[in-house]
Amino acid sequence: MKPIQVGLLGIGTVGSGTFNVLQRNQEEIRRRAGRGIQITMVADLDTARAKSVVGDGAKVVGDAREVIANPEIDIVIELIGGYGIAKTLVMEAIAAGKHVVTANKALLAVHGTEIFAAAHAKGVIVAFEAAVAGGIPIIKALREGLTANRIEWIAGIINGTTNFILSEMRAKGLDFDVVLKEAQRLGYAEADPTFDIEGVDAAHKATIMSAIAFGIPVQFDKAHVEGITKLQAADINYAEQLGYRIKLLGITKRRDKGFELRVHPTLIPSKRLIANVEGAMNAVVVHGDAVGTTLYYGKGAGSEPTASAVIADLVDITRLHTADPDHRVPHLAFQPNELANTPILGMDEVVTSFYLRLQVADQAGVLARITGILAERGISIDALLQRESAEGEAQTDVIILTHDTVEGEMNKAIAQMQALPTVLAPIVRIRKEELN
Amino acid sequence: MKPIQVGLLGIGTVGSGTFNVLQRNQEEIRRRAGRGIQITMVADLDTARAKSVVGDGAKVVGDAREVIANPEIDIVIELIGGYGIAKTLVMEAIAAGKHVVTANKALLAVHGTEIFAAAHAKGVIVAFEAAVAGGIPIIKALREGLTANRIEWIAGIINGTTNFILSEMRAKGLDFDVVLKEAQRLGYAEADPTFDIEGVDAAHKATIMSAIAFGIPVQFDKAHVEGITKLQAADINYAEQLGYRIKLLGITKRRDKGFELRVHPTLIPSKRLIANVEGAMNAVVVHGDAVGTTLYYGKGAGSEPTASAVIADLVDITRLHTADPDHRVPHLAFQPNELANTPILGMDEVVTSFYLRLQVADQAGVLARITGILAERGISIDALLQRESAEGEAQTDVIILTHDTVEGEMNKAIAQMQALPTVLAPIVRIRKEELN
Repeated sequence: MKPIQVGLLGIGTVGSGTFNVLQRNQEEIRRRAGRGIQITMVADLDTARAKSVVGDGAKVVGDAREVIANPEIDIVIELIGGYGIAKTLVMEAIAAGKHVVTANKALLAVHGTEIFAAAHAKGVIVAFEAAVAGGIPIIKALREGLTANRIEWIAGIINGTTNFILSEMRAKGLDFDVVLKEAQRLGYAEADPTFDIEGVDAAHKATIMSAIAFGIPVQFDKAHVEGITKLQAADINYAEQLGYRIKLLGITKRRDKGFELRVHPTLIPSKRLIANVEGAMNAVVVHGDAVGTTLYYGKGAGSEPTASAVIADLVDITRLHTADPDHRVPHLAFQPNELANTPILGMDEVVTSFYLRLQVADQAGVLARITGILAERGISIDALLQRESAEGEAQTDVIILTHDTVEGEMNKAIAQMQALPTVLAPIVRIRKEELN
Repeated sequence: MKPIQVGLLGIGTVGSGTFNVLQRNQEEIRRRAGRGIQITMVADLDTARAKSVVGDGAKVVGDAREVIANPEIDIVIELIGGYGIAKTLVMEAIAAGKHVVTANKALLAVHGTEIFAAAHAKGVIVAFEAAVAGGIPIIKALREGLTANRIEWIAGIINGTTNFILSEMRAKGLDFDVVLKEAQRLGYAEADPTFDIEGVDAAHKATIMSAIAFGIPVQFDKAHVEGITKLQAADINYAEQLGYRIKLLGITKRRDKGFELRVHPTLIPSKRLIANVEGAMNAVVVHGDAVGTTLYYGKGAGSEPTASAVIADLVDITRLHTADPDHRVPHLAFQPNELANTPILGMDEVVTSFYLRLQVADQAGVLARITGILAERGISIDALLQRESAEGEAQTDVIILTHDTVEGEMNKAIAQMQALPTVLAPIVRIRKEELN
């Protein structure tokens, strides 16, 4: 049978990896897929760079629309990124009847509903394993591996840059700014790291996972997005003393009246497997009612790990594109007419436990006032650590771990505590999850 | 559309879980699959027990052949277990044109070639996600998620009973026999635990994974099978001091001239994620050339976790059974005519590093003789620990960690060392893997 012909839009890091792995393992892949898969056309504005990667292996063009217009091309891989031209090209490829493989989480988290609807109407597949957690086949696990389950929650380390920074902060006791510079020097953080360190990238991925786990549309605009830029070494250290590690987690959770969708630094028990995921590695914990807790771990970025996911999608499409579209795995795991309009809950309604650090005057009655405020709000205390004040110091740190509480109540309690004259600095508040 | 009709053979622990989860989550599953999935017939010798589980939800019969003969039944689930009647019924179901879902690793590891060939010829699917690592979707990850990769090796904790026993031995410093009794009391080990503690169950699963990872037939008869019954608390303790934990691993590895396939107790660095998988949990590490190291973790047994895998297979079949059989995922991941006849290597050719414990006379020159023997065989030493002999004792333990070596050479070296008059007891030898 004639090989499946693939057109690649954008041949940067992941594109090069995809081209190279597909060539290197072509025999292995053909033995699995039952048919060859070839990238025969590559579009990149930098045609010289593209040619240096593909040599004579594929035709290089400067205009992506040449690829889309080519009737020989069965599948288009979009690796341009961003919401702009990438969106236009994906929509044009769909309109041209091409299947699409993309690693573009930003695009899908924001415009997924429109894109999947167009693909469904046209009877083509938009595959996106590479959009979440790089080489880890987490989309497949969620869409196909765990179909028996009512998914209860997902919590993932889904941004390698921030996990690298947090690992270094903990290991070396350094502050955020220092480690960020080191990460940039080592290539773990980009020159403009905003999307990573502010949690936006993780929120894109969490948004996609929430949709396919719960059968709801992608709703990035409803996600709570909080990065790691304000994290202090002191809190990482205190957390450690209390048996916790701080990780930037993307969390989405089923609740009675809606779903939680949030990205923020989170204390998790040190003994959990995911607490021990270090450096730029990713891991996603999925809890289903039947299967219980499962975890998926691997490289979340990089040339060949991401290529691994892109090519898995190519093989899936090679197998499925002749099948009745109604029998394919739906884009968002649930049938398009079966998506629920259950809302994403506001942060005031989110339930978590908390880590609080209060810098207080070292005098009688302070602790009574603080604990009194928490008690009035029905917030119960799980653990309390009061640092001995250094000699000559008139202040000390009080660390409180609470049990689960509604965030709205916690906000009010924090405002009250903050107003106490004996609370000397802004209260540090970090959410905590047990991930049982 | 009419629901898919499923017949269940054997309604014990996993069968009950499958029936219950399918009922409880029927709406969730229908929203995903686009079609209802119902167990409408159940066969079990103990019809009273079967009726107590299914109530009026399905017809109960005593004869499995009634299920297979029923033209309304689309898929047959085999949960009887073993090689005997289970095999006959699976072959009859295939002959009757039914798709089959099975959790029977023993059956597939031993008779998989015959069963898959019959299914292929008949154009039906035999799905077996539940056969390896229970609820963890590892078969799907290997067959579909990692298709871009040349898989280099797999190492898994794929037997919960033995992992529970090893976890308890380490945590409490107890010997095997004591912990086995406790495990039996708690229901983690069966009354006859032979298949678990002797490594047979793990070898069945490793055999299946080796086939789908490398594109070779299932070859259980070539697997090296070694259990944990001879493990001593002292070695778990020494390993710990050296920064290692001992786990029963199922390992399969690509080598130049063939594949390794083996189950045995293994030292692994304590800092590896898989070293921290405790109790009855399972985890599988898969290393692919593109994706690098990935890990999959979850419950490897139990009613609903295993049901989760069985039902995922039902959903897959519901989607795929109308598709052109040539475009389905092949049973063993690679197309049937693309399986390689590359051999499974004998243990003499296997390469690992080793942990050795020698009980030696506490006298001059002993260490020189031992290290001399290793050096002659080209086996280099990574670490050496000599316990101070207790006062009045004339003997001591010498612990040696070696670098990678061919097992045949190590066997010769051990025989030579054992023959030394200053080596006072049988040498303990445990293989070691870095799992980088």
